Amino acid sequence: MTYELWYWNGIPGRGEFVRLALEAAKTPYRDCTREPGAGQERLLEDMNRVREYPPFAPPYLVVDRMVISQTANILLFLGEKHSLAPADTAGRLWVNQIQLTIADMVVEAHDVHHPIASSLHYEEQKAESLRRAQVFRETRIPKFLHYFERVLIPHEGWLTAGTHWSYADLSLFQLVDGLLHAFPKRMAAVISDYPCLSGLHKRVGALPELQDYFASPRRLPFGDGMFRYYPELDGE
Amino acid sequence: MTYELWYWNGIPGRGEFVRLALEAAKTPYRDCTREPGAGQERLLEDMNRVREYPPFAPPYLVVDRMVISQTANILLFLGEKHSLAPADTAGRLWVNQIQLTIADMVVEAHDVHHPIASSLHYEEQKAESLRRAQVFRETRIPKFLHYFERVLIPHEGWLTAGTHWSYADLSLFQLVDGLLHAFPKRMAAVISDYPCLSGLHKRVGALPELQDYFASPRRLPFGDGMFRYYPELDGE
Repeated sequence: MTYELWYWNGIPGRGEFVRLALEAAKTPYRDCTREPGAGQERLLEDMNRVREYPPFAPPYLVVDRMVISQTANILLFLGEKHSLAPADTAGRLWVNQIQLTIADMVVEAHDVHHPIASSLHYEEQKAESLRRAQVFRETRIPKFLHYFERVLIPHEGWLTAGTHWSYADLSLFQLVDGLLHAFPKRMAAVISDYPCLSGLHKRVGALPELQDYFASPRRLPFGDGMFRYYPELDGE
Repeated sequence: MTYELWYWNGIPGRGEFVRLALEAAKTPYRDCTREPGAGQERLLEDMNRVREYPPFAPPYLVVDRMVISQTANILLFLGEKHSLAPADTAGRLWVNQIQLTIADMVVEAHDVHHPIASSLHYEEQKAESLRRAQVFRETRIPKFLHYFERVLIPHEGWLTAGTHWSYADLSLFQLVDGLLHAFPKRMAAVISDYPCLSGLHKRVGALPELQDYFASPRRLPFGDGMFRYYPELDGE
């Protein structure tokens, strides 16, 4: 059984949270839109197939006869299947909760450069972006990062008790990575307030099971995805 | 064992998705912030308690020694515990996926009147709201509702195969209810395009297990919650 991952071609985006879990679990998968001769059209065609459980949007995972969409839902499935999260109810729900909180911050990071509509260009909503970016930098970044720092402390550096990472640790790495890319000045100014979070970012970046992936062309640069760097939206 | 539900006082908001599930399951619960003499301060005090798994934001549910937050995560738990969702993997993930898609639309409905910051008043971001509302009405409402209509058809009116509702059916009712409140003109213009969704809204509204609740003061009006009615943001 090889998983089929479907996501927009050319950006890490939300697909990257799934890729990190698949790669760290050493699970074979096809990144369907990125296969030679494939591309965005193949994704749109596949999304329109008649299915019992059709996705609303990518990413989605096709496995056996199941079609699983929504990033946090895919990770819930992979967590259970590949032991990438605790098996007990409290631990499993905790990891899912953190994943959903990460997802909330990802939406906000995206909406900084698209506060009016995803369907419009950044340049068409730049005035609104400048306003939203200021609030995001000054209020939202500290609020979210303070929370993640707070929940890392009692667990000695991972989100779950014990010495092993969960899929939400990988996602938290990706979130911090994205923020460092999109808001380098702001992150440089505040990162020392979050030593546990910064430590987690470094530890996931150094995980032996991810080194092959990070060195491969499968790992995409941020580009025009959720996390975008516009100098005018950043600031200390 | 009585559940403790914690949410902002005075608005249905995200807490309402949890309330509907608890009420329809006929499960006893305390709505802690709304108890006599309680209120917002009691919520803030409780949120700051030192806990192994602290919430990022309300709603959260306290049960036995667990603290479960994030709306979709609470519902995942209640769904498993009270059979409010299918027990098999495919059905359970499907209901979770729909719940997450509903949550995505709730964020967008909220951001129509708060496109810059939740911490600012509507009047401080009204110009941006007018722009975002137009996109929401013309593009996002049809996109989401078309999807929900599409997934209801093969299942004869509920989101899951079979003759029983799941917690996501209750949430979909609440979503439509909120849209009818916030965008009455727009919804009146498009609702006939979505007969299955409209039918689900009516059927959940008539569920025998919810009639006591709907007639009680426990069911709150929309007010200044996620779904708000501003005439200038509505239109056909």
